[in-house]
Amino acid sequence: MIKANNPKIKSWLEIPADSDFSIQNIPFGVFKYKNNAPKVCTRIGDLIIDLAKANDLGYFADLRIPKSVFRNTYLNDFMALGKKTTRAVRDRISDLFNKRVKKWNSRDLIADFSYPAEQVSMLLPVKVGDYTDFYSSIEHATNLGKLFRDPKNALLPNWRHLPVGYHGRASSIIVSGTPIRRPKGQQMPAGAKKPVYGPCRLLDFELEMAFVIGKSSELGHPVTTNQAEDYIFGLTLFNDWSARDIQKWEYVPLGPFLGKNFASHISPWIITLDALEPFRVKGPNQRPKVLPYLEYEGERNYDVQLEVQIQPEGSEAKRVSLSNFKYMYWNMCQQLAHHTVNGCNVNVGDMMASGTISGKNKNSYGSMLEISMGGKHSIKMPDGSERKFILDGDTVIMKGWCEKDGVRVGFGEASGKVLPAIP
Amino acid sequence: MIKANNPKIKSWLEIPADSDFSIQNIPFGVFKYKNNAPKVCTRIGDLIIDLAKANDLGYFADLRIPKSVFRNTYLNDFMALGKKTTRAVRDRISDLFNKRVKKWNSRDLIADFSYPAEQVSMLLPVKVGDYTDFYSSIEHATNLGKLFRDPKNALLPNWRHLPVGYHGRASSIIVSGTPIRRPKGQQMPAGAKKPVYGPCRLLDFELEMAFVIGKSSELGHPVTTNQAEDYIFGLTLFNDWSARDIQKWEYVPLGPFLGKNFASHISPWIITLDALEPFRVKGPNQRPKVLPYLEYEGERNYDVQLEVQIQPEGSEAKRVSLSNFKYMYWNMCQQLAHHTVNGCNVNVGDMMASGTISGKNKNSYGSMLEISMGGKHSIKMPDGSERKFILDGDTVIMKGWCEKDGVRVGFGEASGKVLPAIP
Repeated sequence: MIKANNPKIKSWLEIPADSDFSIQNIPFGVFKYKNNAPKVCTRIGDLIIDLAKANDLGYFADLRIPKSVFRNTYLNDFMALGKKTTRAVRDRISDLFNKRVKKWNSRDLIADFSYPAEQVSMLLPVKVGDYTDFYSSIEHATNLGKLFRDPKNALLPNWRHLPVGYHGRASSIIVSGTPIRRPKGQQMPAGAKKPVYGPCRLLDFELEMAFVIGKSSELGHPVTTNQAEDYIFGLTLFNDWSARDIQKWEYVPLGPFLGKNFASHISPWIITLDALEPFRVKGPNQRPKVLPYLEYEGERNYDVQLEVQIQPEGSEAKRVSLSNFKYMYWNMCQQLAHHTVNGCNVNVGDMMASGTISGKNKNSYGSMLEISMGGKHSIKMPDGSERKFILDGDTVIMKGWCEKDGVRVGFGEASGKVLPAIP
Repeated sequence: MIKANNPKIKSWLEIPADSDFSIQNIPFGVFKYKNNAPKVCTRIGDLIIDLAKANDLGYFADLRIPKSVFRNTYLNDFMALGKKTTRAVRDRISDLFNKRVKKWNSRDLIADFSYPAEQVSMLLPVKVGDYTDFYSSIEHATNLGKLFRDPKNALLPNWRHLPVGYHGRASSIIVSGTPIRRPKGQQMPAGAKKPVYGPCRLLDFELEMAFVIGKSSELGHPVTTNQAEDYIFGLTLFNDWSARDIQKWEYVPLGPFLGKNFASHISPWIITLDALEPFRVKGPNQRPKVLPYLEYEGERNYDVQLEVQIQPEGSEAKRVSLSNFKYMYWNMCQQLAHHTVNGCNVNVGDMMASGTISGKNKNSYGSMLEISMGGKHSIKMPDGSERKFILDGDTVIMKGWCEKDGVRVGFGEASGKVLPAIP
């Protein structure tokens, strides 16, 4: 048990029972208050904790963290301090808010470095270097193989032998709450003789999680499955927006490009692997047996409930998917080991997404493409309208949380509204 | 005519006739002298010009360039100044070395800010944000289609309608001279029942050029073909190393990943679009007609001779390809307009490579895969050995240059030696 995870710790601060931000969570993000410069923060209950101010006031004095690490636009410098230090920061914050620790007169001092959550803006927490997207849910890969290729041979021959992945666009990863424009591009409508240009008609979300690299590796030197967790700082929610009509026309033979790179939303909080430690679970059996470099020991999947809602403009939201990160066939340690087995190097701030996370049942599918069976079926919204794909004005909201022993560790949300295409 | 391009300008400095670095070139790079910090430089003939020192000495005083722009590990801050300023710097350097300009007592002062080229190390010139690889040579795409798919329908249906591209790995882009390790990975040998893990057996180069973004765009806002050149700072040579056996097994359905991301070499110099202006040529006819967003005016191809040599360890080099950048079916303005038509944003430092540049004739093919016809034919080296693909100990050397009106504008070289796989 890592100290700050202890489910018995209670805070003197009032934390709503359904809050994502229990004292066991202690996520990291970057906030902005009014016109002040961005700073690194955490959140407990409904309070944003300004870590730059806490550092100035000496609460981390023994950890000798340079001021610039928290007075920063991104978490990268903080993550690069290494897990020994970042874990010590978590433990210290836990102590500060722990009602049984009497070392500090925290209640009096807390006013000096906290803000009500609704008074700050949360920013993109990480300067993303390279972004990779995997394709590691067997249910999703099977559903797509059935829709696009051969229902009898839905999985391609390589799928069970390696975690299929591809490089994506880092520049268009944006923080929750940023509206996006419906993308335009080339499509080849069914039956047409030549392609057309116009707004995407089949706009879709993909429910994913992404991990963030907190330690750089050297070009030429693989990271093994056993070393991998040392390189993974934490996780965030990830909506891999997809324009299905653009994607379908462009993707042969080199993979998705403009169908994906117009926007990806992440939640503003990075939840550390430390915070997720109590929620480890066993992964699915992998058959056939994987090659030795992909073998791993222990429990490397995580039980994270995931939810997608669609909220039409000015109307009530509807949950359209309830999935779980534990369904992943390939775990993060295997993904990272595979990614680097050829010597590819990783850098602090790199982001690696899971691929769409679908479960076995229809209500656990992670994209409208699967939910609507390729646009064949509609789902009914509370306002009476129907959805096969995402319409202008819709907000797509993704949430994620773990619960065990009365402790809730949540991810906040990755949400974004779709504005009409630029005329 | 942009001033510094004038073919009539002669320098008082002695410049070897075959030098890539005429007074018309004035490329930009980053160098290191002994243990000093890296600085931005240019090169004329055999002299490296320390632009940080020149700025300190007041030669750019009227341009008001902050010291940190040249005292920098990368060119990004310099490029971000905008073309008005970077062009003024080129013109000023041209004047300083122009034998008819008497404004400065340059010959006396030059010793203050120059180094013989052989005394410095050239570093990676750009901090690459996102890296994209296109597939824009019709000869290359046709050759690969014949080898991998259907000889009668070598080009896929989308190829003539859009510049096919995909995202690549930025972290493993390295500067010329850096040795690489033969990558290891999964392969499915012909006739095997299950994949094997081991060193790549079919290691290949890809002869490419890449352009560097010098101006950022906003998410949601496309860059048109007519605006594109304002966003393109310059070009470099690019060797997109490829592990054909790894690539073949992994690449369905989402494109190349570990077959490409272990290393890409670039030359240390960025040659500005300004320097290439006199070498514009007309591009190939595009049939069928492209969609309006891909139409362009004027000459947007460039006549750049390209060469690949293989040098076995301790032996003589052999030229294995002589190609030309002008063969590109899709030009850079079309590539950038396509890349951003969906609203994808670009940032200063982004790099976009052409894809393998092959010509019509066998001696102009840009990869061993094409030269050896998929490994069917060998080429003979001066030492008597044979090559179908690249062997351990080989150095692959790429060169590029333009010549016209007695002026040579060269790219230096992108070269790299292959070391054996890590045991």
